[in-house]
Amino acid sequence: MKKNHLESHDLYRERVNSQLDLFLSSLVSTNFTNNQLKEIIKYSALARGKRFRPILTYTVANLFDVRLEKVDSCACAIELIHIYSLIHDDLPSMDDDDVRHNQPSSHKVFGEAQAILAGDGLQALAFGIICNDPLIHSSMKIKLLSLLSASSYSMAEGQSIDLSIVSHNVDLEILNNMHKKKTGALLNCAIKFGALLNDHISDKDLSILSFFSSQIGLAYQVQDDVLDVTTSDKILGKRQNSDSSKNKPSYPSIIGIDESIKIFESLYDNAIDELSQLSVDAEPLRLITKKLMSRSY
Amino acid sequence: MKKNHLESHDLYRERVNSQLDLFLSSLVSTNFTNNQLKEIIKYSALARGKRFRPILTYTVANLFDVRLEKVDSCACAIELIHIYSLIHDDLPSMDDDDVRHNQPSSHKVFGEAQAILAGDGLQALAFGIICNDPLIHSSMKIKLLSLLSASSYSMAEGQSIDLSIVSHNVDLEILNNMHKKKTGALLNCAIKFGALLNDHISDKDLSILSFFSSQIGLAYQVQDDVLDVTTSDKILGKRQNSDSSKNKPSYPSIIGIDESIKIFESLYDNAIDELSQLSVDAEPLRLITKKLMSRSY
Repeated sequence: MKKNHLESHDLYRERVNSQLDLFLSSLVSTNFTNNQLKEIIKYSALARGKRFRPILTYTVANLFDVRLEKVDSCACAIELIHIYSLIHDDLPSMDDDDVRHNQPSSHKVFGEAQAILAGDGLQALAFGIICNDPLIHSSMKIKLLSLLSASSYSMAEGQSIDLSIVSHNVDLEILNNMHKKKTGALLNCAIKFGALLNDHISDKDLSILSFFSSQIGLAYQVQDDVLDVTTSDKILGKRQNSDSSKNKPSYPSIIGIDESIKIFESLYDNAIDELSQLSVDAEPLRLITKKLMSRSY
Repeated sequence: MKKNHLESHDLYRERVNSQLDLFLSSLVSTNFTNNQLKEIIKYSALARGKRFRPILTYTVANLFDVRLEKVDSCACAIELIHIYSLIHDDLPSMDDDDVRHNQPSSHKVFGEAQAILAGDGLQALAFGIICNDPLIHSSMKIKLLSLLSASSYSMAEGQSIDLSIVSHNVDLEILNNMHKKKTGALLNCAIKFGALLNDHISDKDLSILSFFSSQIGLAYQVQDDVLDVTTSDKILGKRQNSDSSKNKPSYPSIIGIDESIKIFESLYDNAIDELSQLSVDAEPLRLITKKLMSRSY
């Protein structure tokens, strides 16, 4: 059973990889060889990320008996938004990261302007792929797109807060709020997408999934801050200690590493407890949560 | 009659201004004073632009008997996308413009990172405002959002081409294609939005409006290139001669000013001719076209 669930993560990752490849290949190429946009988008999108968010979407959808073909556009949309956010976050004026997924960041290869535009184009494509999915009816699409829009806006707001608190003394409440927007909103969207694809999903299940996502979202960030201090560059695929070297406030910088570890473990525990109230057997989500809890990068 | 039509442009401009103000004021403020995003968005969005695209949307919608309340979200969405594109186009890594609408560009006031994020947030909001409009039914919303996504993607592609041809010798075909994507796509979207809001719009009318928009879109750009050489900074609200000083290929640089004037006048004439085939009296669109044709900035 457990083995099957973990194998399905690999299947979902392969599935979203091939769906992204298919979708991006279908974009009409212009006749003009000097148009780099599609090339940059493919460079960034087909780098081997963890595909954590679409895996969650497929996993939740599967719990609620949604067939996988119906999940593909949502899984891709979530990942397209995530990829756009990474390209923009890596820019010199933002986090100034030269390496992403063990390859040079988009702006290092294609220049800042083209990287900004690739992110812009990716955001537009994310909305389009759901609009054009023939397997989802219109009123469901609107629910999905409305959530995607709100989540994408929150993400930009969160990154704006993140940059504005560099070199400032902030408390945990501000840090929590920033992460809730910067990464929590899109994670929540990924999880709810899987549930909203079932026409008969209950408000209770949606609310449980929201709480679950808020707990693992925050846990993941606190854990990221800890791993940022304790793990080597090569394993992370990005520069180690990058937050503290940029004077970004982090959980370890405010409350220390030991306390940070306690907090993220307790958030993961809350998340697992909440799952027992779902109307379906949530074992696959429990396993994902446990896997996250024990991740070393 | 003519006076009424031109007065209605002012009414539409006022209407989209107040709708944008209303919408942006309704965005939830966070408790954290260091979140600048809403402030930057309002700074950029409420600067007094021409509101040319939403005026077209209202005008076309009115031709096809769509009541104005039903047009507001589309008019705002179009303008939000346009505003985001101006913020990103003005960035140092792109066109590097310090002034927009006679005020400092967003990145000059708030910094590059926050300006990029404001553009990102605006794009997300554009999709959201249509999703959440209670006056439009879901299947119509999906048509509108699908067109908005394709147009917004084309716009990013066009700007990518524009930057890639700086200091290159290009022919008119490449220049036309670039403008078709960079500004034509969103103009087409603005015009079609007004028609698509009528459930019974015919394919023939849509196709006539598409041709009309392609002609005035290109005419506007050729004319912009001409005005860029011949008009003073203060009137344009941006630096004069900015394209040639950046070594951007332009119509005057390829075929000279006189030939460029002939071309844009002939494109406007084509546009006006096409309108006579519409199933409704298109006098308001003819007047807009004539007004554009004779603009001096």
